[in-house]
Amino acid sequence: MLGNEFGHLFKVTSFGESHGKAMGVVIQGCPSGVEFLPDVLESFLARRRPNQNPWVTSRNEADNYEILSGVFEGKTLGTPIAVVVYNQDTRSKDYDKIKNQARPGHADDVWKLKYSHVDHRGGGRSSGRETLSRVIAGAFAKMYLQSANINTEVTTKITKLGPLENKGNDTFPEGTKQLLTEAKEQGESYGGHIHLNISNVSPALGEPVFKKLKAQLATAYMSVGAVVGVELTGGFKNTLKKGTEFHKQGEVIYQGIRGGISTGENINLTIAMKPTSSILDTAKQGRHDPCILVRALPVFEAMTYLVLADTELIKKLNNI
Amino acid sequence: MLGNEFGHLFKVTSFGESHGKAMGVVIQGCPSGVEFLPDVLESFLARRRPNQNPWVTSRNEADNYEILSGVFEGKTLGTPIAVVVYNQDTRSKDYDKIKNQARPGHADDVWKLKYSHVDHRGGGRSSGRETLSRVIAGAFAKMYLQSANINTEVTTKITKLGPLENKGNDTFPEGTKQLLTEAKEQGESYGGHIHLNISNVSPALGEPVFKKLKAQLATAYMSVGAVVGVELTGGFKNTLKKGTEFHKQGEVIYQGIRGGISTGENINLTIAMKPTSSILDTAKQGRHDPCILVRALPVFEAMTYLVLADTELIKKLNNI
Amino acid sequence: MLGNEFGHLFKVTSFGESHGKAMGVVIQGCPSGVEFLPDVLESFLARRRPNQNPWVTSRNEADNYEILSGVFEGKTLGTPIAVVVYNQDTRSKDYDKIKNQARPGHADDVWKLKYSHVDHRGGGRSSGRETLSRVIAGAFAKMYLQSANINTEVTTKITKLGPLENKGNDTFPEGTKQLLTEAKEQGESYGGHIHLNISNVSPALGEPVFKKLKAQLATAYMSVGAVVGVELTGGFKNTLKKGTEFHKQGEVIYQGIRGGISTGENINLTIAMKPTSSILDTAKQGRHDPCILVRALPVFEAMTYLVLADTELIKKLNNI
Amino acid sequence: MLGNEFGHLFKVTSFGESHGKAMGVVIQGCPSGVEFLPDVLESFLARRRPNQNPWVTSRNEADNYEILSGVFEGKTLGTPIAVVVYNQDTRSKDYDKIKNQARPGHADDVWKLKYSHVDHRGGGRSSGRETLSRVIAGAFAKMYLQSANINTEVTTKITKLGPLENKGNDTFPEGTKQLLTEAKEQGESYGGHIHLNISNVSPALGEPVFKKLKAQLATAYMSVGAVVGVELTGGFKNTLKKGTEFHKQGEVIYQGIRGGISTGENINLTIAMKPTSSILDTAKQGRHDPCILVRALPVFEAMTYLVLADTELIKKLNNI
Repeated sequence: MLGNEFGHLFKVTSFGESHGKAMGVVIQGCPSGVEFLPDVLESFLARRRPNQNPWVTSRNEADNYEILSGVFEGKTLGTPIAVVVYNQDTRSKDYDKIKNQARPGHADDVWKLKYSHVDHRGGGRSSGRETLSRVIAGAFAKMYLQSANINTEVTTKITKLGPLENKGNDTFPEGTKQLLTEAKEQGESYGGHIHLNISNVSPALGEPVFKKLKAQLATAYMSVGAVVGVELTGGFKNTLKKGTEFHKQGEVIYQGIRGGISTGENINLTIAMKPTSSILDTAKQGRHDPCILVRALPVFEAMTYLVLADTELIKKLNNI
Repeated sequence: MLGNEFGHLFKVTSFGESHGKAMGVVIQGCPSGVEFLPDVLESFLARRRPNQNPWVTSRNEADNYEILSGVFEGKTLGTPIAVVVYNQDTRSKDYDKIKNQARPGHADDVWKLKYSHVDHRGGGRSSGRETLSRVIAGAFAKMYLQSANINTEVTTKITKLGPLENKGNDTFPEGTKQLLTEAKEQGESYGGHIHLNISNVSPALGEPVFKKLKAQLATAYMSVGAVVGVELTGGFKNTLKKGTEFHKQGEVIYQGIRGGISTGENINLTIAMKPTSSILDTAKQGRHDPCILVRALPVFEAMTYLVLADTELIKKLNNI
Repeated sequence: MLGNEFGHLFKVTSFGESHGKAMGVVIQGCPSGVEFLPDVLESFLARRRPNQNPWVTSRNEADNYEILSGVFEGKTLGTPIAVVVYNQDTRSKDYDKIKNQARPGHADDVWKLKYSHVDHRGGGRSSGRETLSRVIAGAFAKMYLQSANINTEVTTKITKLGPLENKGNDTFPEGTKQLLTEAKEQGESYGGHIHLNISNVSPALGEPVFKKLKAQLATAYMSVGAVVGVELTGGFKNTLKKGTEFHKQGEVIYQGIRGGISTGENINLTIAMKPTSSILDTAKQGRHDPCILVRALPVFEAMTYLVLADTELIKKLNNI
Repeated sequence: MLGNEFGHLFKVTSFGESHGKAMGVVIQGCPSGVEFLPDVLESFLARRRPNQNPWVTSRNEADNYEILSGVFEGKTLGTPIAVVVYNQDTRSKDYDKIKNQARPGHADDVWKLKYSHVDHRGGGRSSGRETLSRVIAGAFAKMYLQSANINTEVTTKITKLGPLENKGNDTFPEGTKQLLTEAKEQGESYGGHIHLNISNVSPALGEPVFKKLKAQLATAYMSVGAVVGVELTGGFKNTLKKGTEFHKQGEVIYQGIRGGISTGENINLTIAMKPTSSILDTAKQGRHDPCILVRALPVFEAMTYLVLADTELIKKLNNI
């Protein structure tokens, strides 16, 4: 209960079980007159799509979206935007044999404990497939920002992937392809760190005292499965410096958010994701990702755009 | 706007400017019949009180609370609980000279940018004094849990304090007193890491998908000033292990929360706080903490109890 | 914005434009384990369906519903329940000629004023077709109550229909069929009063002070198009009596709600609906109801079940 | 639970028991920079004050307010505005003898049923004294509108008072003073009808579909004790007219709200309030109002200003 909504004024309601009829989302609070940009949505969908390359799950989903409401003649109406994606490759029968068998490391048993009656097929609603609703919503958030001439940009890259490190600006560390191809064969899995940069940020976003911008971003990312840590980039390390070093004249550590409010400077965050739980035999048999980070990038971007759209709307209200 | 509330069913509304008339809080959703335990509240207040020892700010506040409503004959009424603490040692005149002068590292200028008209005295509502409302509310959350025979316990300790490390179970690293006494003299400041342990947790707390328990805790801590990172303890480091190592049989990494839901096992989190911004001359002249971590411990505990009370109430609703 | 949701814990999000792809609803907060009863849903749908008899609009909609999520093997999962009804008989072209022509008495022009970009076809989202989402949600609310062994029953009847009066227990006044058949021919329309009875009510429903049960019911009914008044039955007349008469020993006026809270006694309400706006030529040409009251009965029942389900869930939280 | 808040963006949290320490309110979402106008607040307070003339309760309360936060140097800060009124004339001992004795017609017993532990003194939180919080909040809502150059005006008059009728523009029917003076002597009480006019309304207020302006106003008034009916003025009578009469060319019935949205035309509503429950001996002994309507006028105005401030803020969000 109460957990399938995100946002205050730009508000997302997510629904759908992994092997049910459809995944979907209702977006409330998107102003009217926002131009619908199919490219923005399709790019998000393509990047989180399963079966896009050999390193990700082979579940075969075209993820064709259908807009049921809220968009008319290429523009939003200001009414709720409902978008669904019908599940295709559900193979529910595959899951019958493991119906009463909790998969190690998965949420199956704790979910059962909480709800008693559960959809055991492929994790039901605890599946990563739920992030489909998030990227759809995030795409609309991005369209809203663009229509409102807010040019904030969110980019992500994997900075650490198991043993690999990415010191440049590429999206993936060198060697990613090989590491993951081998992992898939061996039933190995990898976690790592994702770096997220927000540039061209409007000042004055974030709401003191409980909804500071950093608090809203942290909950956005921590709500994604497998995330086990969030920091303003370098936070855990930098906090061990003396104050006179940390706050040194001219240095701009964490200048992007002060007092919980955006200053207009860039914001940098790092997210830690654990290795996927499906390993060894389980991983080899099923349709699993050896590393969830690759497909997670658009999800974090989407969550960021949702926070940005929401806080931009709230900003309209601050002064008379 | 929209930022002074925390929680869904056990809901806190915080108010008050640092040098205004009073700080206060309204707590909604605390069930009726909860025994009011002054000791619980006073212990929280004592631990975050200024001027409690030489390492913390010398602002002299007795922090006497007054319960205005919601408690009658020693028990809660189920109606809103309003508690206020009148500000005593406000010395507003001290701030007149710096009225139009943003203090470096503080939120003064960004707050001004956001609200135009601000209370410049001592940070106004961006002051750490606001956490007074949090510990009061957290104390009531704890009382609710106790009355409902939920014996979850939250403990905190400082594991890293600038150069110091605490490997044992003490609240402070060895050498804390000396380090901070010197810091106060020199206008130095320190940040560090706080470890938070939640034991005797009820299973099935946390609401998929956006309000996973870890997401609610992360936003609770990140909403506190100076916090720059939150992780399930060791998260940033552990995520770099191979999946076959991370999920090794018998190991219980992050077993406390699975699928975003509590399992009943202990939950461990680490919080990174930056050194306070008031350094050098500013620090020496004013009334400042050379290290905010000491007084922050009860604040993180309070925020945790708030999340626990809230999720316990939500749990009542899951099944028929 | 902010207007497409109803309820707090049993929460409905409605979407869909009259001539868009589909109408639909997402229901959050329905506990897991509630038995899905197709009869309950289909009975509601049948009673508000267009083209069910000669007195109602001839728009031909089978209103076949599709459950996209939240129900598995005949029971709710505790996850969001999404239900859609694809629009069939949309005849959007009929509306092209009146694209820039506000229909008198309709919301077209004020909607345009508010949102700038609108779906002009058949009223878009301001259409009565939106109540489809309400009856679907109300049916699930009723199923929840039944699964929880709460046997509250809601019944409605039309007590006044233009010149006709219904003093008995029938659903319609004598002469309804003839009056409405003639009205349809002549382009006339009628409003009237609906009486709603709630029996077997649980005591202690309703939340002081702003969410008294009467306040929640009033907003539920007033949110339906064409409603221009709500009273505890006889309220406008009875308030003119002296207090010594009104509160006479033994009399049980408005005993069903006291202090805003249900007592367990029956609750009676009367709702006033105005005549439909489509009259004369407009009415004869298009597909319109000469009297909306007939099809509105299940809508008011549904709204009542939603309030009941919501307040029953809240009731679980009052005491420790 | 969940019942002590009103509004979405201009949001009120009310607290306080009639014979507890204080009544109070926290107002969230009032933009910064709103000029504080003591006259507006004091005028509201004076009109609902007890003991203002012989017809109202003799409880002697100066109702001196204290602003604890959110206002600085004569202007709002954009932070929560907390205002309290300490209770003075509580005479709690008067209530000891009736501690376990439910007063007929009052909410005492049903409140006891709901919360188990209650403050029995003077109705506790079910007392009409709670409306103090409403008028304080309403006054700030009015100040916000004025600061934003929104000149909407709300006026009220008693159109029916028991046997008396007011056909003109005066606030009270002729004979009010005599009727109520006699009622007070005899332990009689009266109810009646209040007419409320909203002029200079901004167009486009109200949020389809569940938060139509009429729905928000209806719940605002129905949340006040003793209210048993709300209509767009004349609604119950007018709905019995034929459509061709009701919608006659040139007539402007209910033009103020169409499709649930304000059009800019005046809005007229009628509210029915029942006679106070304290009659005969009870009324003669205690401190009671023989007619609550007189002191209720500013309460309905305040509730209206709250809805207006809230919907005006929401209006800012509709378009890009």
